[in-house]
Amino acid sequence: MERNNADPQDLPMAVEANQEGLQSNEDLHLVLVLRLPSFNLPLNDILRPHFHILDPADSPEPACSFLSNHAQSVRALICVGYTPVTAETLNLLPSLELIVASSAGVDHIDIQECRRRGIIMTNASTAFAEDAADYAVALLIDVWRRISAADRFLHAGLWPVKGDYPLASKLRGKRVGIVGLGSIGFEVSKRLEAFGCSIAYNSRMEKPSVPFPYYANVLDLAAHSDALVLCCSLTEQTRHIINKDVMTALGKKGVIINVGRGGLIDEKELVQFLLRGDIGGAGLDVFENEPDVPRELFELDNVVLSPHRAIATPESFEAVYQLILTNLKAFFSNKPLQSVYQIE
Amino acid sequence: MERNNADPQDLPMAVEANQEGLQSNEDLHLVLVLRLPSFNLPLNDILRPHFHILDPADSPEPACSFLSNHAQSVRALICVGYTPVTAETLNLLPSLELIVASSAGVDHIDIQECRRRGIIMTNASTAFAEDAADYAVALLIDVWRRISAADRFLHAGLWPVKGDYPLASKLRGKRVGIVGLGSIGFEVSKRLEAFGCSIAYNSRMEKPSVPFPYYANVLDLAAHSDALVLCCSLTEQTRHIINKDVMTALGKKGVIINVGRGGLIDEKELVQFLLRGDIGGAGLDVFENEPDVPRELFELDNVVLSPHRAIATPESFEAVYQLILTNLKAFFSNKPLQSVYQIE
Repeated sequence: MERNNADPQDLPMAVEANQEGLQSNEDLHLVLVLRLPSFNLPLNDILRPHFHILDPADSPEPACSFLSNHAQSVRALICVGYTPVTAETLNLLPSLELIVASSAGVDHIDIQECRRRGIIMTNASTAFAEDAADYAVALLIDVWRRISAADRFLHAGLWPVKGDYPLASKLRGKRVGIVGLGSIGFEVSKRLEAFGCSIAYNSRMEKPSVPFPYYANVLDLAAHSDALVLCCSLTEQTRHIINKDVMTALGKKGVIINVGRGGLIDEKELVQFLLRGDIGGAGLDVFENEPDVPRELFELDNVVLSPHRAIATPESFEAVYQLILTNLKAFFSNKPLQSVYQIE
Repeated sequence: MERNNADPQDLPMAVEANQEGLQSNEDLHLVLVLRLPSFNLPLNDILRPHFHILDPADSPEPACSFLSNHAQSVRALICVGYTPVTAETLNLLPSLELIVASSAGVDHIDIQECRRRGIIMTNASTAFAEDAADYAVALLIDVWRRISAADRFLHAGLWPVKGDYPLASKLRGKRVGIVGLGSIGFEVSKRLEAFGCSIAYNSRMEKPSVPFPYYANVLDLAAHSDALVLCCSLTEQTRHIINKDVMTALGKKGVIINVGRGGLIDEKELVQFLLRGDIGGAGLDVFENEPDVPRELFELDNVVLSPHRAIATPESFEAVYQLILTNLKAFFSNKPLQSVYQIE
């Protein structure tokens, strides 16, 4: 999630308005917002007409005592960006029934504790799906057609010196394996079909509604793919799902695109495979230790690097705000939620 | 067209085989190949079983005397790559009825002289259409989502220093104006529809078979578009079709993608518009004086530069060879030609 560009002057006004809310809006449902102080979104302004917002980051009280004193009856929590929601935090919220995450990935939230407690979670992957898919497809074409590398070739003044730039690979007929066919993965598939690629996928479960071949494990998918596009959540089950064996199965011409989380890939192994030429290329929007990127990758022309920006457009953020509002309203009126995260 | 990677040792063998052809294949139809010596394609090997190939570049004789001595009865000519075919050359070929161009653009061939003489021309835009369209779409997403610029941001080590990279633009809902809705432009439209863009176009004539709004002039199209994608031929009519007025109509957020020819854009004006921020960005695969690229563009993060590579994959070259073979066979058996270039 994004630090916003709102005027910092807004913050004291927001606190003031919130205090007003505390006095006059006692009949509104309580909603707790958990955010790192750096995540200062215009979200409260959107929600305040509808809910009684509790935001510990606006209070001088330490967060844990704020939660103990004010949040015992809170049933719904908004987790902004990658703000950690640990088992300890959840222990301070005995009435919690719903977590509304403003991110697509939810690996910063203690999912197992949520499962144990029966807490429902929604994420924002539907709101981010199109942007993430656009970006994943662009990274894939970029690696196959060497666009960023060609741009560097020109910037270095090499065209008049070295002449023709090497040929690249055609997209039509390429076999793309999508790892995680949720809302993002499905949007990726729709786009790549327009380029004449054939699609297969791995997912927690086979999806009867889609026409693509399903592989129950990633190793088999890799063995039958020219590229893997990673769109799944990072969980205990998916950490390092792209390991040495999968990269070997993908092969020397295989390409890996990651718009999920850095931890989906064994990054040290990936760097070695790339350096040895044992896979064909990579387009990486996410890394294991952001903002640190393995420097060895800077030297490679078959690697496109991006600073965790696949989902970042003003339009997608607006869609997230609306999704959060819609889900909170639905929750408090017992209507169906959107973008529910299926806890395994 | 591409210089091939064939072993230079192949060349004398080709001459020898060709001389054999001159002796033994007198019943095969004559086909003249015009190519710059640097364009040494495996084309002759593909064609020799079917045609009696005349290739002046294989002869020690000067080209003009070779043509006068051997090519008076030639009805079909293959123009390889961007080899110029001038009125003077055409004067040496009194029996010529067909030019088969191996390129998508045909601005290196004297089109008006062909029209006067009634010479039919085929180009290779259908064979290159998918690759050119893939590339055009990738350049457009790259500019809108700032992918090459983000890659440079990481390569410069700026992520840990500067933090979040600026937000980019969402694709869904963007209005894309395609200039030239031939085979390449049509493939561009199919792909961009999968990203939720809306399409309009300008072309020599309205195409009743397509559902997109038609604008009879580029100025109107620019005024109603968030981006222009140039896919048309370079002719006397289209030279500098993207001029000051069109860029003004496109506006400060407008993006220009060029996979056609550099001469379609008034490049000096484009540079000024970009430097002043009077248009939003550009993705350029072609330039007016290749391989020279205006150096001012190197400093701009909203510009993606590429060394005339939109059509360059091994698969597209193979498709061109097959298209040339198919068209020559069709011509000599009075069957319909593919990819006929409509001379205005």
